[in-house]
Amino acid sequence: MRSFSRGALDARPVTLTPGVNKHAEGSCQVEFGDTRVLVTCSVEEKVPPHVFGTGGGWVTAEYGMLPRSTHGRMKREAAQGKQGGRTLEIQRLIGRALRASIDLKALGPRTLTLDCDVIQADGGTRTASITGAWVAMVLALRKLKKKSTINQLPPLTHVAAISVGVVKGEVVVDLDYDEDSTAEVDLNVVALEGSRLVEVQGTAENGHFDRARLDEMLDAGTATIEKLVALQKQVLG
Amino acid sequence: MRSFSRGALDARPVTLTPGVNKHAEGSCQVEFGDTRVLVTCSVEEKVPPHVFGTGGGWVTAEYGMLPRSTHGRMKREAAQGKQGGRTLEIQRLIGRALRASIDLKALGPRTLTLDCDVIQADGGTRTASITGAWVAMVLALRKLKKKSTINQLPPLTHVAAISVGVVKGEVVVDLDYDEDSTAEVDLNVVALEGSRLVEVQGTAENGHFDRARLDEMLDAGTATIEKLVALQKQVLG
Amino acid sequence: MRSFSRGALDARPVTLTPGVNKHAEGSCQVEFGDTRVLVTCSVEEKVPPHVFGTGGGWVTAEYGMLPRSTHGRMKREAAQGKQGGRTLEIQRLIGRALRASIDLKALGPRTLTLDCDVIQADGGTRTASITGAWVAMVLALRKLKKKSTINQLPPLTHVAAISVGVVKGEVVVDLDYDEDSTAEVDLNVVALEGSRLVEVQGTAENGHFDRARLDEMLDAGTATIEKLVALQKQVLG
Amino acid sequence: MRSFSRGALDARPVTLTPGVNKHAEGSCQVEFGDTRVLVTCSVEEKVPPHVFGTGGGWVTAEYGMLPRSTHGRMKREAAQGKQGGRTLEIQRLIGRALRASIDLKALGPRTLTLDCDVIQADGGTRTASITGAWVAMVLALRKLKKKSTINQLPPLTHVAAISVGVVKGEVVVDLDYDEDSTAEVDLNVVALEGSRLVEVQGTAENGHFDRARLDEMLDAGTATIEKLVALQKQVLG
Amino acid sequence: MRSFSRGALDARPVTLTPGVNKHAEGSCQVEFGDTRVLVTCSVEEKVPPHVFGTGGGWVTAEYGMLPRSTHGRMKREAAQGKQGGRTLEIQRLIGRALRASIDLKALGPRTLTLDCDVIQADGGTRTASITGAWVAMVLALRKLKKKSTINQLPPLTHVAAISVGVVKGEVVVDLDYDEDSTAEVDLNVVALEGSRLVEVQGTAENGHFDRARLDEMLDAGTATIEKLVALQKQVLG
Amino acid sequence: MRSFSRGALDARPVTLTPGVNKHAEGSCQVEFGDTRVLVTCSVEEKVPPHVFGTGGGWVTAEYGMLPRSTHGRMKREAAQGKQGGRTLEIQRLIGRALRASIDLKALGPRTLTLDCDVIQADGGTRTASITGAWVAMVLALRKLKKKSTINQLPPLTHVAAISVGVVKGEVVVDLDYDEDSTAEVDLNVVALEGSRLVEVQGTAENGHFDRARLDEMLDAGTATIEKLVALQKQVLG
Repeated sequence: MRSFSRGALDARPVTLTPGVNKHAEGSCQVEFGDTRVLVTCSVEEKVPPHVFGTGGGWVTAEYGMLPRSTHGRMKREAAQGKQGGRTLEIQRLIGRALRASIDLKALGPRTLTLDCDVIQADGGTRTASITGAWVAMVLALRKLKKKSTINQLPPLTHVAAISVGVVKGEVVVDLDYDEDSTAEVDLNVVALEGSRLVEVQGTAENGHFDRARLDEMLDAGTATIEKLVALQKQVLG
Repeated sequence: MRSFSRGALDARPVTLTPGVNKHAEGSCQVEFGDTRVLVTCSVEEKVPPHVFGTGGGWVTAEYGMLPRSTHGRMKREAAQGKQGGRTLEIQRLIGRALRASIDLKALGPRTLTLDCDVIQADGGTRTASITGAWVAMVLALRKLKKKSTINQLPPLTHVAAISVGVVKGEVVVDLDYDEDSTAEVDLNVVALEGSRLVEVQGTAENGHFDRARLDEMLDAGTATIEKLVALQKQVLG
Repeated sequence: MRSFSRGALDARPVTLTPGVNKHAEGSCQVEFGDTRVLVTCSVEEKVPPHVFGTGGGWVTAEYGMLPRSTHGRMKREAAQGKQGGRTLEIQRLIGRALRASIDLKALGPRTLTLDCDVIQADGGTRTASITGAWVAMVLALRKLKKKSTINQLPPLTHVAAISVGVVKGEVVVDLDYDEDSTAEVDLNVVALEGSRLVEVQGTAENGHFDRARLDEMLDAGTATIEKLVALQKQVLG
Repeated sequence: MRSFSRGALDARPVTLTPGVNKHAEGSCQVEFGDTRVLVTCSVEEKVPPHVFGTGGGWVTAEYGMLPRSTHGRMKREAAQGKQGGRTLEIQRLIGRALRASIDLKALGPRTLTLDCDVIQADGGTRTASITGAWVAMVLALRKLKKKSTINQLPPLTHVAAISVGVVKGEVVVDLDYDEDSTAEVDLNVVALEGSRLVEVQGTAENGHFDRARLDEMLDAGTATIEKLVALQKQVLG
Repeated sequence: MRSFSRGALDARPVTLTPGVNKHAEGSCQVEFGDTRVLVTCSVEEKVPPHVFGTGGGWVTAEYGMLPRSTHGRMKREAAQGKQGGRTLEIQRLIGRALRASIDLKALGPRTLTLDCDVIQADGGTRTASITGAWVAMVLALRKLKKKSTINQLPPLTHVAAISVGVVKGEVVVDLDYDEDSTAEVDLNVVALEGSRLVEVQGTAENGHFDRARLDEMLDAGTATIEKLVALQKQVLG
Repeated sequence: MRSFSRGALDARPVTLTPGVNKHAEGSCQVEFGDTRVLVTCSVEEKVPPHVFGTGGGWVTAEYGMLPRSTHGRMKREAAQGKQGGRTLEIQRLIGRALRASIDLKALGPRTLTLDCDVIQADGGTRTASITGAWVAMVLALRKLKKKSTINQLPPLTHVAAISVGVVKGEVVVDLDYDEDSTAEVDLNVVALEGSRLVEVQGTAENGHFDRARLDEMLDAGTATIEKLVALQKQVLG
């Protein structure tokens, strides 16, 4: 039996709680079951060098885990003196996903930074981060509009993400930590509303997978993403 | 008028929420007004070199701030590649405060690590951390006893902390960020139950202070600490 | 017209030159057109902590680029004091790919380290690295057998990798740097002999992609990988 | 019997030797018994960003210990690749103390850096540093005036510091290393001339302390500081 | 018998292969027997601060070894987070040697960076680097002239380098790794065409050496350098 | 006229002050004119891995400069987070020089660490360090013998060092900072008693030098080293 008594193709209960931080321009706490991530969106009226002078803006992300967000205590990256490869890989993924959802040119010369900090981890922290970051980003843009920093929101498309895997030979959606540890295949899917893919990362953790299996996983992933998009809409009103 | 319509010698509303993390042996979310800190207590059955072989244990702390816990976004220390001087100073303070509250010899050869992560900052993060860390530590020890890792709790004394300051010539308790930024004097007091001092750190931010003023601040601080201890007792049952 | 006057679904000329380093247990220089990577395989008779005591072995990879392997000079990571996120991400990918191709239990308690150093870059360095690393690894294992360190080679399956992309609306295989810079979609495929997928990483660099397009890219990728496997066989005799 | 045959409330022999460095604008070697610190004051005609544009100046401090200034050899922080928490905490304290002694606005847009390097340590290095740094700073300002970089010295107030502790139940002043290692309470006091406090840092190393004990320590500390100020005056002529 | 059946005062076979990198302004692969170094010369139209405003240019070098260029695998400096003392010492030496061979004023306000990466090491990597770097630098300058970035080449003098040592009491030239490991004295000589010395670094690895022995080594070294210069001329046409 | 009214081949006044640190097993303050270096020798009863098990010992050195030992303030290496190339190069040189002066096998399984910290710099810090370090090392060995840690001193040979240069076409000995900044050639000579060379490092800072000039410099250098050895003998009794 899966956690939360759910079926193979069901995600865990998902909650998106907007406005959880009084300082940030936008914020959202996202929960996928026992996975809990706090996302804030910070706005700076400047852009990184590679965008400077183009008139457009930039969206970037940083990711971190609290030391005891995990089963055993992880060493604090700040104390270690560097961010690990997994951290850097995840924050690059989140940044790409968010940039796919917004018209950077229309954003104007400003940078949105999405900080995704894992308060409690139980599998799926990167997909939860992406799903919640979209909400935090939209809230930040709305605040900019309200303050008349921008005249109108740049064109936006919902983006969300979910993990899919093969566990004991069966395709399952939104793996928790126990499932993730034993999965034969692990696939993260990021898509815009309407099953338009922006990122597909599939890895055979043990063995390999064929095209039929990949199709089955992608079907399950995009179907779930549509549900996450519906939830984002509901939360954002 | 002070925030939360309070008097000069009143602390902000304080809440201690135990058990907020499913993985940690003990945890507590502590709020002093809009300051919110998540504390977890992790237990390891080993001790650092300087304690090894003594039969006793150790208690240590780490402190961090989420990048957007503050008014403007701070750079992430993990990305910077090192912890700043303020961070190191605060985590050393928290560690000393907690060690003063427990009989380390009776703890046995294990290490308790208190991770204090600031989710939202509005002044007083170090004093909130100490006050909440004591709750998280006791909860962790109770869990150890329940699992029979230890036969009985080591002797413990409540410890709590509060900031006191002089703002516009008046002694005030539990400064929020705005008050802290303009205070003439800043004093952090850490005490065991019964006004037994374990740490007094007073700094003239602008000018100096005399002994009468110090006495006034210490009176206000220890009186507030007694109230925090009462709240800890209530929460821990 | 594509570089090397090739068709959309053709890879660049590929050469695998074994035995290019006199010290390493195994080595291979791999060229995909103007991309040139030197791979060495080093053997150590010890294993990392998470494998210790299991009787099995480990395969890991490190990746680096010479400062002027690229169009403009990149800063040397050793001088920067840290490896960038892209470097860490690629070396994690190479390690996973190689581990999928060997029976780690049968390898016995030893570690194979694949160093993939890019001498000249023109797109596709990670896929060239994987393809060449497999040759270097097999050569190292053969040397171990020749020296009687091992009695027989552990079970092995060919692994190779290729990049596929969408450039100006058309699916193309093995993108060079110019194509890669303007691709709408970028997909890296890693597969075992027989089109058994071990890693699929697709990213929309600009826009999104649908399932039909993904299928088209995967078809092109796995077909090319079979040709790379044939070349590996030829080189290894 | 205490070192140097002194009474409980006596400091060790203190010497302040001005002008010990030919390059620095100001310098002073300070000795508290066997503790020996070399302080230089360097002047730069620029200010840090948070002061820029205010017309005022800044005073900052750095602290270091030679590897064999201590009983056993410490690892060199430069070789370790970072400064420890104790180092950062002490240099922040020294900086605050010196800034309290000078009118930063009147200093004009320049930065004074006090480098406090411990040549030999035997307890009380931070209090010796502050006491000597004041002399080095005044000498640097006098040189600026002599060179007509400034027209007149900014308003200055003497600042000095001393450690006080409780050892075997008795209040003692200016603890040497052996006393410091066994003290029940450790208090560092920084004050301007006239017992005007600028910093009070008291820590129970073992147990706790009450208000009466704190008063007793503060009395002893400020009395000693007055003597240090007298010595500063004598040395500066 | 020495490697390559050579006499005591013979260098190993030396090859200089120009133009081995398609991106760099100049490049050269240099081999001294089994030692193989890839040198690229990169040009930037800016200068470091200490040259800025003088109208002149700068030449600098960086040095690195691939992890398995050596007998056993070395740890990658980028992964270690810093360059070792030997690396820094060698790249400073290469930079000084090249700067001695060119009129920096006539170079104009640009920086030439020589990256010397050791592909395979068998002794003498620093002397091979210098000898090959000169070729790469001249090729880069010729390209600048061809592109009309400069009107004419700045005045240049050939520079080359060789190692000399005392092995089992006998002076030998161009030591390979085995000889280097057992040498009593190790001397690196860098000279301009015409035996004009620019750098002499002699070290007794075991014992000491007298002036007569030093003379004997310098004679052997400068004679070999003249042959290297002849080879440079032949390669550069 | 040279500083201290000396002739071209005269060193500055040299003083060696033994026993300047109460904690170190051996110590010596060395002054070459205004250059002042504090050397301590620390003994540890363990050896580094590459010596472990051989029965012999090791001698190593570390070098540092106080931030204001120089004309302008240098950044503190501990604050920078790493030691520069010059620092590493000098400490490697000092270590080699000292190891040449002692029978490491007879030393037994212990490590001597020579910390050379520059209190004030005016040229020649590395040669002063070597000359003073030998005194500190001998004092440490004598203390070991006195404490009966060793039965007898290992065989020792005096080692000292001096800088020689060519300034305005003339050979001069023991260059101060102003001379060093303008020298055409810079040569550091390290020799054992009796003009037995252990290290010769000559660099043309501007132009080149011929063999006759090198001979002239070496004559001057070794003659001065004999005088330094005489002074070491006098100081050590």
